Amino acid sequence: MNILIIGGGGVVGQKLAQALVKSGMLRGQAITRITLADVVDPAPVAAPFEIRTMICDIADPASVAECVSKDTDVIYLLAAIVSAHAEEDFDAGMKINLFGTYNVLERCRALGTSPVVVFTSSIAVYGGEAQDPLGDHSFPNPQTSYGMQKAAGELFINDYSRKGFIDGRAFRLPTISVRPGKPNRAASSFMSSILREPLNGQEAVCPVDADFLHYYLSPRRCVDNLIKGAELAGDDIGQNRVMQMPGTSLSIKQLIDAMTAVAGPEPAKLIRWDAQPDIKKIVSGWRWDIHADKAERLGLKADDSFEDNIRYYLEDDKPAA
Amino acid sequence: MNILIIGGGGVVGQKLAQALVKSGMLRGQAITRITLADVVDPAPVAAPFEIRTMICDIADPASVAECVSKDTDVIYLLAAIVSAHAEEDFDAGMKINLFGTYNVLERCRALGTSPVVVFTSSIAVYGGEAQDPLGDHSFPNPQTSYGMQKAAGELFINDYSRKGFIDGRAFRLPTISVRPGKPNRAASSFMSSILREPLNGQEAVCPVDADFLHYYLSPRRCVDNLIKGAELAGDDIGQNRVMQMPGTSLSIKQLIDAMTAVAGPEPAKLIRWDAQPDIKKIVSGWRWDIHADKAERLGLKADDSFEDNIRYYLEDDKPAA
Repeated sequence: MNILIIGGGGVVGQKLAQALVKSGMLRGQAITRITLADVVDPAPVAAPFEIRTMICDIADPASVAECVSKDTDVIYLLAAIVSAHAEEDFDAGMKINLFGTYNVLERCRALGTSPVVVFTSSIAVYGGEAQDPLGDHSFPNPQTSYGMQKAAGELFINDYSRKGFIDGRAFRLPTISVRPGKPNRAASSFMSSILREPLNGQEAVCPVDADFLHYYLSPRRCVDNLIKGAELAGDDIGQNRVMQMPGTSLSIKQLIDAMTAVAGPEPAKLIRWDAQPDIKKIVSGWRWDIHADKAERLGLKADDSFEDNIRYYLEDDKPAA
Repeated sequence: MNILIIGGGGVVGQKLAQALVKSGMLRGQAITRITLADVVDPAPVAAPFEIRTMICDIADPASVAECVSKDTDVIYLLAAIVSAHAEEDFDAGMKINLFGTYNVLERCRALGTSPVVVFTSSIAVYGGEAQDPLGDHSFPNPQTSYGMQKAAGELFINDYSRKGFIDGRAFRLPTISVRPGKPNRAASSFMSSILREPLNGQEAVCPVDADFLHYYLSPRRCVDNLIKGAELAGDDIGQNRVMQMPGTSLSIKQLIDAMTAVAGPEPAKLIRWDAQPDIKKIVSGWRWDIHADKAERLGLKADDSFEDNIRYYLEDDKPAA
């Protein structure tokens, strides 16, 4: 079992690799190699089998051809230009999120090996005139270019799977929180930083109101779901290979209350409330009344409570003092 | 008012040009030029203003740049590789239907003129696990590559409009019947030929059963709707620039009964019933429980009865004996 993680240098890619190493198996077979590919050389992970790291620019078909090979069994396609960045730089978003996805799928088609492809879409596909409640059967009317590019990627995954070019499955990720590391250019970045920075003893800015509702999943549970997602049999998924990954709808206040319940009252005092119209404009187009019926039926899971999300951060990610 | 029709050599493109010439006006302004662009040099139409014809390959950005210019006010983007052809030749479908659409929109973006773009999508975007009844709010789960490419084009139209690069609107065309001319490589081709050929005194083959249901619109009413579609104000359309164009759900038997009601009993005797599994496989994935709420609210219309579709063919298109 030969696994390629494109976007293997990112937070989810690294955690996924670690979880795969820990399990040693995927789809009932022993893992023999994991390749971590990213636009900057990804950090390797320790493993009792071969770990390769390589630079891959999915906007370049030749670069894609170097990392997707005849013996690649499972591809995780996690690489993306995130929301605020793709909104600001339309060309970059198209190049990576749309044509990059196309290049990976075209490489699979050219090889004729029909690998399993796990594509991470996003709840950013919902928006505009799509009617609540949202889920697997909603019309995608994204209000960001990032969401549009992800929705187009979903269409590719379905059609390439239908044609037998790949055995694809796409999951609309909830916003991942608590995300470790530094803020990024995702408009949702604050949804982790208002917890992460205070838990690390640092100040953070909350650009929206306390009653702002959103749909969340912990990195740990997201990785569990991505592994389960690769293991699903194509026939069990059906004609629509795209589904919502389970998450939980919560207000900013509920996130902070969970932090206080786990870590005491001090971290919440480090949050500075400072409305930011640019961020608000993007995220207010996002939606939260989201349901993941199909994925839940197939065994994927949301977190049990946001207290878990806080605990996972403290256990897995909090930097040593 | 300068109008460009890409796909101007096709049945709908030619009829649209004739109707625009007849009206002389679009969006409240006198038409000063119509350019008919197509992959083979389109036939000109007679007009009291300038008519240009030109060859355009939308797969080639340089060719697109030649026909979309700074003074283009309205673009009708009708050109496409049709369903059975795109299913058979995946690359051709992607090149024209997906990248061709992208090239036209990118040209508009580069010009910075935000022209009105009327894009013809299709009911082929429905399928798979999309739930009846279908319409503006359905999840597109197309079961052909043509449908996938059209659904991706819809996403582009919405996002390029949201960003202000174009003032777009996309209409999911019902199957156009009675279509004049020769059969084409659309899987739906028989839905016209079983009427057109008998009305011309020729034999035709029906590859599906008499109770096969589908969703139809006459060429004449389609053109009316495309003109109305260009005239809608963007603000009246809202955040979803994509909508179902009104049509009527009918069985093959109802089509034939309408033909008999208008033209007498002889034509129906020229239909030979011969099941064709390849065609049936494609069209049985298509859907008919379709509603066009938004377009109807905005003033677009279905035919009053299929007898009209037959009459329009006899009046507009039947070749002289």
